[in-house]
Amino acid sequence: MLITSVDNKKIKDYVSLKTSKGRKEKGLFLVEGSHLCEEAEKSGLLQELLVLDKMKLEFDTNKEIIYVTENVMKKISNLTNIPMVIGVCKIKENKKIEGNHILLLDNIQDPGNIGTIIRSAKAFNVDTIVLSDDSVDIYNDKVLRSTQGMLFHSNIIYDNLTNVINKLKKENYLILGTDVNNGTDVRDIKVDKYALIMGNEGHGVRKEIKEICDKNLYIKMNNSCESLNVAVATSILLYELNRSNHE
Amino acid sequence: MLITSVDNKKIKDYVSLKTSKGRKEKGLFLVEGSHLCEEAEKSGLLQELLVLDKMKLEFDTNKEIIYVTENVMKKISNLTNIPMVIGVCKIKENKKIEGNHILLLDNIQDPGNIGTIIRSAKAFNVDTIVLSDDSVDIYNDKVLRSTQGMLFHSNIIYDNLTNVINKLKKENYLILGTDVNNGTDVRDIKVDKYALIMGNEGHGVRKEIKEICDKNLYIKMNNSCESLNVAVATSILLYELNRSNHE
Repeated sequence: MLITSVDNKKIKDYVSLKTSKGRKEKGLFLVEGSHLCEEAEKSGLLQELLVLDKMKLEFDTNKEIIYVTENVMKKISNLTNIPMVIGVCKIKENKKIEGNHILLLDNIQDPGNIGTIIRSAKAFNVDTIVLSDDSVDIYNDKVLRSTQGMLFHSNIIYDNLTNVINKLKKENYLILGTDVNNGTDVRDIKVDKYALIMGNEGHGVRKEIKEICDKNLYIKMNNSCESLNVAVATSILLYELNRSNHE
Repeated sequence: MLITSVDNKKIKDYVSLKTSKGRKEKGLFLVEGSHLCEEAEKSGLLQELLVLDKMKLEFDTNKEIIYVTENVMKKISNLTNIPMVIGVCKIKENKKIEGNHILLLDNIQDPGNIGTIIRSAKAFNVDTIVLSDDSVDIYNDKVLRSTQGMLFHSNIIYDNLTNVINKLKKENYLILGTDVNNGTDVRDIKVDKYALIMGNEGHGVRKEIKEICDKNLYIKMNNSCESLNVAVATSILLYELNRSNHE
């Protein structure tokens, strides 16, 4: 099949997936470019592929391929340079916390930060990521690009963090916050079962959540620097927690 | 002085500072918002302030203040929500490598990554950052915002990296690269005088530079994850190198 018109019903449906509202309504999201489409295929979430007319896919798939013209691709893509392929994927509804290493993200807003954190969480063996309900939508195209495909291999849940923390406390997870002034050096802690909470770029973790942390961590650094980027701070903490578990 | 027209000569000059070309021609750059303007003031680079009509500055300064109307501010600002104040700063021409901890960045292109790296470099006691001549312009507004003002307290140079490395080698700096497969665990290295080289987001460090590294480093992580975001990887390596120097 080749679609040449941006007014085609199918194309209009795909364009609606560029907004968070459209994605929620249809339970679908888009990924752009060969690398992300291939990761989507591997994860089993890929439903359909839109390929630029006359182009050849760089990976194997048994999914339906719809060929589209440049103007149609341009309409669906978020990128300045349109990709050769866009994948239509199913949103996986996760609801179950798995594993001993949990990362809780309280109202993180920057898509690049969320994506980078998801990528690092995979690298440092986090089992489940829980995002507060007011966090940025992870199916946003900028988040997807920053995860470098790691989203497809992660267990990610949206929930009310206070409820989640109370539940985790009962199951003996150590609840870890951060405190630049009075925290424990992250290198000095050894813990098997933890939930690390990281907060919003500007305001940090909200007060009612901060109060129920069991322990606050600190990253050793030059005092003249007030703080690190939240994706960097999260990554260093996870890196250290991961090492403490494997050494 | 109150300027109300976007056609004012001074305003046109400021608008030209939104491009890399304009900044190079005039030797000036802009910073937006109270926090960055205050950091600029402390650093001595602030020349002049543009303040929204009827607003009051949140910090002390003896620099010239020009009041502007909302439409003028909108024309100069890069932000969706215009700031209350924009600072006009002088570009400082650095040419001298200082200190024992040098970070070399080979063709990093994402402004957010560069800004985040500059912020982390300050936190982990890097003395000088050298950017390859083809790296992104650090006076780009997105870089400035991501540094959180740390740019004003950093020694940053643009230069040809091969020449710089050859010079550093003669001065007994250990030249450190990265290698995911055959590198040395960064935690196992102790070095006082080093130059760490980090490469482009997509292509890594260019071949001719990789070849002259004395040692390659590695960050311990889950094998299923191909790589980390470059700002995260740089930050973890600097964090470890900084600790090895202070423990």
